[in-house]
Amino acid sequence: MQVEGGYWGRILRVNLSTGEIKVEPLPEEFPRKYLGGVGFGTRLLYDEVPAKADPLGPENKMIITPGLFVGTGIGTGSKTAFNFKSPLTGGYGRSMAGAKMGEELKKAGYDVLIIEGQSDEPVLLYIKDDEVKLVPANDYWGLTTGEARKKAKEEYPGFATAFIGPAGENLSLISIIDTDERQAARGGPGAVLGSKRLKGIVVKGTKKIPIAKPDKLRELIFYWAKVFKDHPATKADMDYGSGEFLDWMNRERGTFPVRNWQMGFFKKAYEKLKEMQEKGLQFRVHIEIDPYYWAPKYRVGRRPCPMCNKPCSQYVKVESERWGTFMVDGPEYETLYSFGGALELDDFETVAYLNYLADELGLDTISAGVTIAWAMEAYERGLLTKEETDGLELTFGNGEAAVEALKKMAYREGNLGKLLADGVKRASERLGKESWKFAMHVKGMEPPAYDVRGIKGMALAFAVSVRGADHLTSGAYGTELVGKWWKFEGVDRTKGENKGFEIAFHENLMAVYDATGTCKFSRHMYFLEGFPDLIEAVTGMNIGEAELMVIGERIMNIARAFNVREGFTRKDDTLPYRIMWEPIPEGPSKGLHVPPWELDRMLDEYYQARGWSRDGIPTKAKLMALDLPDIADDIGAGI
Amino acid sequence: MQVEGGYWGRILRVNLSTGEIKVEPLPEEFPRKYLGGVGFGTRLLYDEVPAKADPLGPENKMIITPGLFVGTGIGTGSKTAFNFKSPLTGGYGRSMAGAKMGEELKKAGYDVLIIEGQSDEPVLLYIKDDEVKLVPANDYWGLTTGEARKKAKEEYPGFATAFIGPAGENLSLISIIDTDERQAARGGPGAVLGSKRLKGIVVKGTKKIPIAKPDKLRELIFYWAKVFKDHPATKADMDYGSGEFLDWMNRERGTFPVRNWQMGFFKKAYEKLKEMQEKGLQFRVHIEIDPYYWAPKYRVGRRPCPMCNKPCSQYVKVESERWGTFMVDGPEYETLYSFGGALELDDFETVAYLNYLADELGLDTISAGVTIAWAMEAYERGLLTKEETDGLELTFGNGEAAVEALKKMAYREGNLGKLLADGVKRASERLGKESWKFAMHVKGMEPPAYDVRGIKGMALAFAVSVRGADHLTSGAYGTELVGKWWKFEGVDRTKGENKGFEIAFHENLMAVYDATGTCKFSRHMYFLEGFPDLIEAVTGMNIGEAELMVIGERIMNIARAFNVREGFTRKDDTLPYRIMWEPIPEGPSKGLHVPPWELDRMLDEYYQARGWSRDGIPTKAKLMALDLPDIADDIGAGI
Repeated sequence: MQVEGGYWGRILRVNLSTGEIKVEPLPEEFPRKYLGGVGFGTRLLYDEVPAKADPLGPENKMIITPGLFVGTGIGTGSKTAFNFKSPLTGGYGRSMAGAKMGEELKKAGYDVLIIEGQSDEPVLLYIKDDEVKLVPANDYWGLTTGEARKKAKEEYPGFATAFIGPAGENLSLISIIDTDERQAARGGPGAVLGSKRLKGIVVKGTKKIPIAKPDKLRELIFYWAKVFKDHPATKADMDYGSGEFLDWMNRERGTFPVRNWQMGFFKKAYEKLKEMQEKGLQFRVHIEIDPYYWAPKYRVGRRPCPMCNKPCSQYVKVESERWGTFMVDGPEYETLYSFGGALELDDFETVAYLNYLADELGLDTISAGVTIAWAMEAYERGLLTKEETDGLELTFGNGEAAVEALKKMAYREGNLGKLLADGVKRASERLGKESWKFAMHVKGMEPPAYDVRGIKGMALAFAVSVRGADHLTSGAYGTELVGKWWKFEGVDRTKGENKGFEIAFHENLMAVYDATGTCKFSRHMYFLEGFPDLIEAVTGMNIGEAELMVIGERIMNIARAFNVREGFTRKDDTLPYRIMWEPIPEGPSKGLHVPPWELDRMLDEYYQARGWSRDGIPTKAKLMALDLPDIADDIGAGI
Repeated sequence: MQVEGGYWGRILRVNLSTGEIKVEPLPEEFPRKYLGGVGFGTRLLYDEVPAKADPLGPENKMIITPGLFVGTGIGTGSKTAFNFKSPLTGGYGRSMAGAKMGEELKKAGYDVLIIEGQSDEPVLLYIKDDEVKLVPANDYWGLTTGEARKKAKEEYPGFATAFIGPAGENLSLISIIDTDERQAARGGPGAVLGSKRLKGIVVKGTKKIPIAKPDKLRELIFYWAKVFKDHPATKADMDYGSGEFLDWMNRERGTFPVRNWQMGFFKKAYEKLKEMQEKGLQFRVHIEIDPYYWAPKYRVGRRPCPMCNKPCSQYVKVESERWGTFMVDGPEYETLYSFGGALELDDFETVAYLNYLADELGLDTISAGVTIAWAMEAYERGLLTKEETDGLELTFGNGEAAVEALKKMAYREGNLGKLLADGVKRASERLGKESWKFAMHVKGMEPPAYDVRGIKGMALAFAVSVRGADHLTSGAYGTELVGKWWKFEGVDRTKGENKGFEIAFHENLMAVYDATGTCKFSRHMYFLEGFPDLIEAVTGMNIGEAELMVIGERIMNIARAFNVREGFTRKDDTLPYRIMWEPIPEGPSKGLHVPPWELDRMLDEYYQARGWSRDGIPTKAKLMALDLPDIADDIGAGI
């Protein structure tokens, strides 16, 4: 490598069909052009997984790329990217996790791990520095993620782990990979490993990650530690986790999706408030799923991502009559929505138990919750019979029924399990009866906890996101909801104007976060300005802010090109029927929705900002300008 | 300034109306955002010269910005930008010269000189370090550039100079500024100074230009000196100057415009060749204006730009019966066309004399020659009477008539002088009679020596150039004519496809050259890769290649925005009638022309590559992405 530090210049390639294990050089141009993490992953995915490959066949790959900062000690720089063709969307798949295994992989001497082919028998991938082998894993197959992790920690003490649960084994399209209680969740990565019969990975490294300027890096790490410490968001995260703003989203903005997006807020919170006011009382807390209620009450510790400067982890212990005693990290904001709001279930212990179960069984909490919410609506509407629910009384707010449904999904058990195992799009296709009208998804992926009818920039972000309905590809929800951030002023969440550049810019910036492996909750600290010095300290490369944005734009264009090659066009950049046609019925965002003509206008703006064709295809000119001439040849649009 | 070297952080502002002289700080963000030279100049011009300002009124400004490398010793880094609203085009005006005065200005402690307002009486601007004053200059008014320079060198020994000639005084719209025998020529900068009654500038500096890393810079200078020395183009330039490839353009490509663009080559060269072949002879030289003929014969020395590593200067002495004895630097390739090819005048001594006269009188050789060529065609067609030519037999090839015409133009003398003084667009408007059909110009500016009917990418470059028909804004002629360069392969000059990105890319790259003040004849040595190290040595700033291209793109977008604010749109991005409708009649490029539909296709491609609207307006999204939010507000196109 021409760079001084930060990279080993080594790709570890493991073929599960042949058993072949190889170390290959990282292409010379990769560091400057793609930085690392999702940058490497996206480029390799485009190059290595051919168009129309079966996502659950041997041609798909799981490309694991720790971010550039992983293992360097840079605060929040713990994110490892899992890159794959998504079986859920049929397009570009990317899932990030603050995975200990990413750090160990780097310490073992690898920048990238490519897993390809398909094993006949269940296996584990064992990596210890230069010793890499496939180990038969029949005794792991069938275990939950927690059981597998516990067993592995005994057999391979000191190793970091990654495991799929029963849902991944059963090829659920919404199944996850659990990496030491951090989940690479979205888009079905668990099913990809399941299809390869790779139950998990255990990895340990003992090498020292090369750093170009260790003294400078140390200084910067101290500097940033203080910045984080002094930032008000740090305390909020530490006290209440990522759900800290749930009440605000619910009552102030009315954009917290409830009852499978029939409502934009938890009405109960208002009722409670009114009741208190009538009694002359004032309390901060009006619903149970608000962390202001449960975090102080249930938290027993923290299990943050490695090197976190602003740990949002709320490790809780629940001793419940119904669910017994269990511990779980979370629930995150998104899970408080998917198992709380979406199910209209304001019962913290049950929500936490659903979270625990989903992690253990290996299901994406967002996708699983939204799918169950859909089933509840279908049941209440009489579209789903009791026979089809295997006898469950699947009504909103019924926590017991949700727990049963979740278990069935992981095992494809009974009528209900078979119906719901692959997420809401497949479920609605299987059920028919116009149930697609309330199936909440974009490109097959279930949306996170932002009622984008009242956050119109995020509606655009959902529609265009390369991996389906997704808050993290753009990370623009804060800007939209607060109305300003950094370079953005006067953002109006209720209008569909001026969103194109905003979303494209945020996406490019977030791609830089994903390439460095930095947590997006740090974007109010590092912004973009923080990166050039950190990158220089780690690698010796001097990359200015403008060039970083070019790298981000390059990554986003490759991801889009991957989808274009699969046949995605403008028609796929759409929104669920409910978001387009059913206004939020009450509350602060009452009356808002995103009709197709408004979405069309936003798409025009976005494609223009991206320099893409009106059909949403990256132009040859844009791809050439991003120094991607081969992709320009492959898919570039002409005039 | 936050940077370590390269800049003083000082703007010298001279108001000729009030006599006020001020030093102002260079805005903090300028170095990283605009680099220097034309980058500073373009931004300041946009900010300071209001829309619809009279180019010859007090609101116009002459903003003189030495390139970042000027005075640092970096090879060919001698170019100073003269930025102004062009009286010739009514739009963005920029003219570069290897001006000694730029270096002295920097040594005097200024990054930028802004001249504004209008003096009642002729004045000189005197600058010696911190001593800056306006000196009455009645005794200079009326002198030729050479006479004024000679007088100034006596009165202000050791000073660098810049002067306008009689043409500038008489507000000819094609008049130049002569800076110690280097001309800032295109777009009428002479008239801008003439309108301000500023005859000239004398400047001397004694300060040491701040350099961030002098040792590193010294090393790099030696390194590049060797690269230049070993490069084959250096010898060709030294032996024959910029006209070295004239014969190739004429005979191999058939794209050397002759007889006011009625022909794509000098037929005489073929005839001579045939004659020789019949005699069994072989000579390299077939026409007199080919430097292979005249350079060895007439050259008496070299007067290169400061710090030139590949001097193309051919200083010639002509002892002529008709024209007496004179010395002149040149003629350059463009002048061999404008006074040679365009007039079908294969008489070196007369071409050189016309060059000498144009420099002395203060006229742009390209524009003046093309204007006379038009008059010759009009005369031969009977559209121009002998009364209108003041009795001149203004036929092609008539050198004496051309000399007389040129003198008349500079002084607006007689019918012919009044007709031709302001270039070909005004002349054809004054004459009428459909003479516009063979008036060669884009946006009012006369084209250089590339018959773009056979170089279609350059046809696009002519059409879209912010300053009118122009080879230097894109510098793409080499790529087009050779068919490849650097990142470009398989370029087909005969077809109108795939030109949009090519031209946009070249323009952005050339803006980097103009910002650093590097000669474009160095683009085969430095390409883009050479700049980051040089910029770091000079300024301490680490700016990678991708960011440099963003800076170039930013500059080009501001220049375009300047024109948009003046009312320019797609309709102005057009070509002369002859280029669109009259194919090259003979030779290697026979039959080629650029019909409007082909131009339209190229414009579509170019606007797409630029991220502009189909009407050629920079979009808000593009301007925001370039961190130019104020300009986005001013002129940015929506969807």
